[in-house]
Formats: sequence, C-alpha cells, structure tokens
Amino acid sequence: MKSGIEELEAKGKAAKAASHRMAYLSTEVKNKALHNISQNLLAKKKEILAANQIDYKEAEASGMNAAMLDRLMLSSERLEAIARDVLAVAALPDPVGEVFDMRTLPNGLLLGKKRVPLGVIGAIYESRPNVTIDISVLCLKSGNAIILRGGKETIHSNSALVRVVQDAVAKAGMPDGAVQFIENTDRTLVNHMLKMGGIIDLLIPRGGAGLIKSVSENATMPVVTGGIGVCHIYVDKSADVAKAVAIAYNAKVQRPTVCNALDSLLVHAGIARRCLPKVAAEWARAGVEMHCDERALAILKSKSALKLVPAVDEDWGKEFLSLVAAVKVVDSLDEALEHIERYGSGHSEAIVTEDYGSAMRFLNEVDAACVYVNASTRFTDGGQFGLGAEVGISTQKVHARGPMGLKELTSYKWIIFGSGQVRP
Amino acid sequence: MKSGIEELEAKGKAAKAASHRMAYLSTEVKNKALHNISQNLLAKKKEILAANQIDYKEAEASGMNAAMLDRLMLSSERLEAIARDVLAVAALPDPVGEVFDMRTLPNGLLLGKKRVPLGVIGAIYESRPNVTIDISVLCLKSGNAIILRGGKETIHSNSALVRVVQDAVAKAGMPDGAVQFIENTDRTLVNHMLKMGGIIDLLIPRGGAGLIKSVSENATMPVVTGGIGVCHIYVDKSADVAKAVAIAYNAKVQRPTVCNALDSLLVHAGIARRCLPKVAAEWARAGVEMHCDERALAILKSKSALKLVPAVDEDWGKEFLSLVAAVKVVDSLDEALEHIERYGSGHSEAIVTEDYGSAMRFLNEVDAACVYVNASTRFTDGGQFGLGAEVGISTQKVHARGPMGLKELTSYKWIIFGSGQVRP
Repeated sequence: MKSGIEELEAKGKAAKAASHRMAYLSTEVKNKALHNISQNLLAKKKEILAANQIDYKEAEASGMNAAMLDRLMLSSERLEAIARDVLAVAALPDPVGEVFDMRTLPNGLLLGKKRVPLGVIGAIYESRPNVTIDISVLCLKSGNAIILRGGKETIHSNSALVRVVQDAVAKAGMPDGAVQFIENTDRTLVNHMLKMGGIIDLLIPRGGAGLIKSVSENATMPVVTGGIGVCHIYVDKSADVAKAVAIAYNAKVQRPTVCNALDSLLVHAGIARRCLPKVAAEWARAGVEMHCDERALAILKSKSALKLVPAVDEDWGKEFLSLVAAVKVVDSLDEALEHIERYGSGHSEAIVTEDYGSAMRFLNEVDAACVYVNASTRFTDGGQFGLGAEVGISTQKVHARGPMGLKELTSYKWIIFGSGQVRP
Repeated sequence: MKSGIEELEAKGKAAKAASHRMAYLSTEVKNKALHNISQNLLAKKKEILAANQIDYKEAEASGMNAAMLDRLMLSSERLEAIARDVLAVAALPDPVGEVFDMRTLPNGLLLGKKRVPLGVIGAIYESRPNVTIDISVLCLKSGNAIILRGGKETIHSNSALVRVVQDAVAKAGMPDGAVQFIENTDRTLVNHMLKMGGIIDLLIPRGGAGLIKSVSENATMPVVTGGIGVCHIYVDKSADVAKAVAIAYNAKVQRPTVCNALDSLLVHAGIARRCLPKVAAEWARAGVEMHCDERALAILKSKSALKLVPAVDEDWGKEFLSLVAAVKVVDSLDEALEHIERYGSGHSEAIVTEDYGSAMRFLNEVDAACVYVNASTRFTDGGQFGLGAEVGISTQKVHARGPMGLKELTSYKWIIFGSGQVRP
C-alpha cells in the first residue's frame, strides 16, 4: 500500500497549499465555480447516470439492501435537483470575511472577529453520491479545500461527479488542488487519513454507525459526527389528530431510508384510541410494519390489513431506515420526555400538540439537534432549513449542531486595531 | 488503581446527572453562586495562601523552574484580582437561552437556534491554580457541570479553591455534583478520563506541549487545544519607533512566563538601525537576552550592557516563556508574513506600522487566533477582551478560536414551531 499512502499524502499537501489561496478568493470566483458545476452536472448527465448504473448493478448483484440501494441511486430527476441545489448555494451570502462582535474597549482597542475558512475539510462517506456534490459545493463556497473519500460501492458515480467538479473549478480560476478525490478504495487509506492531523482541519464522516465510531475514536484532528437518527414523534393528549396522522405519515413514509425519518411513535393514552387507528390505517396504505407495545397492540389488534408485531426491547432506540416503526402508548408528557432522553440519538424529535405548555416544555427539555412542534422530522435538512445544502447533520454539541451549511464550515480570527496600547 | 477509576466514574456520573438540571437554572441562581465564590475567596484567603505556600515550597525544593514557580504562585493581590474577575463574569449576560437566527420559512415554519450549555466540561491543567476558579466560574455561569483535574504540583492550592467553589455552589442552590474535583493525582486517571466520551462533552487541556499532544491524540471526546504561543511582533518600515519600543517591551517583559508573551521580534531592514538599539536598551533594563540573527547582531554588537547571543535555527518557532527573545532583520512585509506562517503557532501576532496597506495585509493574511495592529500581544486574554475570564486560549479553528469565555462553552439546538407542516 506504500504508493497509495504516498499518493494520499501528496493530495493532502496539494489541498493544504490550495487552502491558503482559497481563503482570499473573491465571492465572484467562488460563485462562478458553483455555476460551472451546476451546468456541468446537466451537460454530463448521461455519463454520470451511466457511471451510477454500473455502481447500482454491482451493488444489487452483491446483495445490497433496498435502503442502501435507494441511497446510491441517481436518476435524471435527482441529478436535476442536485444541480438546482448548487445554484441555491451560489445565491447564498459568502460567509467568509464577515466581521462581527466588533467593539471598542475602554482602552481604545477596536476588537472583533472576522470569519475565515477552516482550511482543509476531509470527508469520508458511504453510498450517497449526491454527498460528493453537496460537500464540494459548500466547502468551495466557504473557501475550504477538500479531500473526498467516498465508498467503494459508488466509486464510478463519484469519479464522474468529481471530474465535473474539478473541471468546473479549474475553469473558474480556483487554485489547482482545491478538490482532491481518493480513487483508491483500499480501506487502509482511511486509517492513514485519520492520522493526517496537520493537513486536515476538520474531518466529517458520513455513513453507518461503524464508520462514525471508528473515525471518532481514531482521528487525530477535530471531527464532527452525526447522521444517526433515532427520531421520535410524541402525540400529546391535546393533539389535533389530523395533524398527528399527516405528520406521522410523512415522517415515516416520505423517505424511510434517511436519518431524519421517524423511528418511534409515542402516543398519549388519553388520545391513543382516537389517534392510533387512523395513523395505522394511513401507514397500512404504504405497507408500514408496526412494532407495538402491549397497549398499542390492544388498540390495533382488531383492525384488519395492519402489519402488527409485538415490540421487543431492541425496538426502542433502533434506527429502522425502512418502513418499520415502533409504537408505544405513554401516560404523560413526562414519560415521553424520559423515553426520548433514554432512547433518542439527539437528532430530531417532534411533539404534536395544541397545548401551549406542552409545546414549550418539549422545546425546552428535549436535548436534541432539532426539536419540532407540529411538524415532520423530515425537515431536518440543510436545504429545507434554508442553508442551500448540508455537509452533514451533526449530533454533537461542539462546533456545530444539526444541519451544517456554509457558516458551519468556517472559523474566525480576532482582529485588533490598536494605536500603541500596552497591557498595564 | 481500581478504586481511583471507580471514584472517577462515580464523579463523572454525578456531574452528568447535575448537568441535566444545570441547563435550566435561572440566571439569578448562577449569579448567586458566583457572588458566593468571590466572597468566599476573600473570606478564606488565609487558608488558600497557606495551602499555596505548601505547594510552592514543595515545587521549589523539587527544582521547578522560575517560570513554572511564577505560574503556581498565589499572592494576596492575585487572589483579590481573581475574586474581582469572578464578579466581572457574574455581571456578564447569561448566554444560555439566547435565541438567534430566527426566521420564518416560506412554508410557514418558524425556525432558529436556542443557546444551550454543552453539558459536562472536563479540564486537565497544570500549575496555575487560578485556572481552577476561572474554569469553574465560566462553566457554572454557562450552565455546565465540570470535572477538574489539576496538577500534582498544585494539589493543596486546588483543593482549597475547590472547597470554596463547592461550598459557594451548594449555598446558592445549584445541583449537587456540579463541581467535581479529582484529588487523586495518579496519572493513569488522566488516561481513563480521556476515555469517558459518553460523560464529558468537551475536554480542555491546559499545560505544556506534551499534555496537549497526548490529550489530542487519545481523547475520545471533542477537545479544544491551545495555550502554546509562539508570538511574533513585526516592526514595519513605516513604524512609529516609540510605539514599537513600548509594545516590544510590554510584550516581552510584563509577564514573560505566559503564552501571549513575545518570542520573536522581526524588524524591517529599513528601520532596524533606528529601532533595534532602542528596543534593546529598554529590554536591557529588564535583563532580556537577545538571540540575534547576523544582521541584528551587526547593528547591536557595539552597544554595551546588552545580553546578545547569536541565534541558532531552534530559536525560530521557540516559545521561550522567559526573558529571552529571538530577533531577526527582514527585508519586507512578505518575508515577515512567510516567517510567521512557517514558525508561528497560530496564537497571537502583531504588526507595528503607520502604513494602512501593511496593516490591512497583516490583518488579512496572518492566520492566527489573534492578529494585532499597533498593540501588545499580551492583550490576548479573556479578561482583557471583555469576556470576564477565559477557560483557555484555543489555537484550533474548530468550535472556538482565541480566548474562550461564556459563549464558547455553549452549543445550540434548532427549535422549530410548526402548524402541521409536512415535507413535500
């Protein structure tokens, strides 16, 4: 593996060198690069989809499950949506250079903070090829160089997408080396990447729990982790049943393979008989399998056409990533809060309620990246939140939490304007 | 060491439990605790200074160097200053609960961020007992629980100070367990602390390069590192010589044992003959030893009463922490910027200049936590910057950079107010 590591080191150095010049690029050049990427994505659609088909067929043949296949798949529509998202990021304000918290101290020093890029962002990700574009675009707009390491299963798609990005970036006049892609899929290279603390300023792992854990434990540079979402919806006693049904349906069914999809539905005992059968009937149309606690089972067992399974302990706190939901009847908001505290992953949690006090307690007391009142957890997404896209969804508290967009890829420096001041 | 580890685990659990309640404390209770600490520090001055004397004498007998002894030493004046700083923090706004970036999306979702504490802050530090108070006060005001692990060399001082804090906190009605102190000075406990990723949300190491490196490489939780300051002052061709002399004197002499003290003085060749002898004459009064490059030596060698040493390669990029400075004559601002890029530690860098363009280029191009025009690097300090105090000075870019005060000890959660919205 010597040559693979040498190549990785060389790419790292090239990214670092580029990052120094990236910090001073004009917004115009950065936006030009993004517009080029958007255009290239459409111009090269045929090649990209053909490359994606190779990955898809290989993955299918190797027995990849439906959730992962769905994540991997690009279609003409998905590619067009990605190209549109790139333009949305181009239209956002440039975070770099923003001066904030500026003030004059009693001694006359004028001091404040100026926003600067982080430097070199490393990304290690699995499956979803759109991540290649999302991360590239956000990093470039925020003035960072990037080292991308996608999964073996999407190597053809990612190679095609990176060519689009590198070509667009060069034509816009960005420094050579700003976008590095590791084609070599040998796993030992990931381990080596984790040791490149002097090169990579922030590492973002996106993928399964195994990848996240391994990166957190072994990386020598700062890491932002996330992407594991065990999401709850609590239907309060006072809930509007129609809203509860619509939100539960959307959160579970609209795209079940992603981290912000619903996993566990908690329903107050005072509304369960009215609400649960309606939720279950809607879910049944989409084929949702319900893992029910005893009380939920008692309410639903007489209904026909439902896929009901008695819940086991492992269902609580499980990220299903498929058309399966755990369902539990609780006696109070407190019980729901305790359940979420115990089993939640700190990603996205929602309450459906018409009671002001319950709404405010839920917002205040749930400790998660995104806490909702009367809305679907599926909104936890950089694009939906108005960030244009996202490099990931952080479930840690340090540096950034929730969807990470442009600002979350920056740091700041203190700038101090003096006139000869010395410390007394 | 079994029992030590068990005790550490128990303290960690107690801190975690306390942190959940700390998040909801009123500003009034938190300020009451801080006022109690300030009063207790003065009331218990005799005990604290007596404890510090034990540490000081033991350290002196063990051959600790002057820089470290100065860091360790508490005096009546230093204690009074610490007590005043506590009140300054109490007077600052409570960062917790601040709601920001709030906006209504086109779909009617009202969304934004709410500032929350990080949870449990771990601190591993050496020598300076005032760190015990600074970290305690900032963490408590920002709603965090703390686990403190001071050095063996200040165990008596820290024990006395922690008693003051714990007593004050209990009297204010804060949760038991909010302030944990590890009295056991066995080094294996530090290694175990680095593995407590589920308990400690942010770890702050403060001490020498060895400690910082070991913590960065082995911690399983997010870490903010810093405290190593290789600080430069560049005297531009256009500098006001009187300002340059005053700033160089202050930065080197006022407290040479700390990280924001000057290490390397770079002087433009066009002003070196006018400026360097004056800087040297002032420094000579304080006994500063100058490690000079050939051109600086040529200018200064005829002067009497100077401690001149020819510079060696290791002098560039060295943190002296004593009355020693490296001195180099450079031919341009570009050469100064390159030197700082190569040898700086990203802590504090200053230019002395009357030229607008040089000032702006230095501010823009130097990549450091704090970049100064015409002021002493000694200002890099939470208290001096108006943060009340600091838990440390970050030289990393992720999460926080430069002096870390209250805001830097917080995270946020996204709060979303809906009315039944689902994702299309």
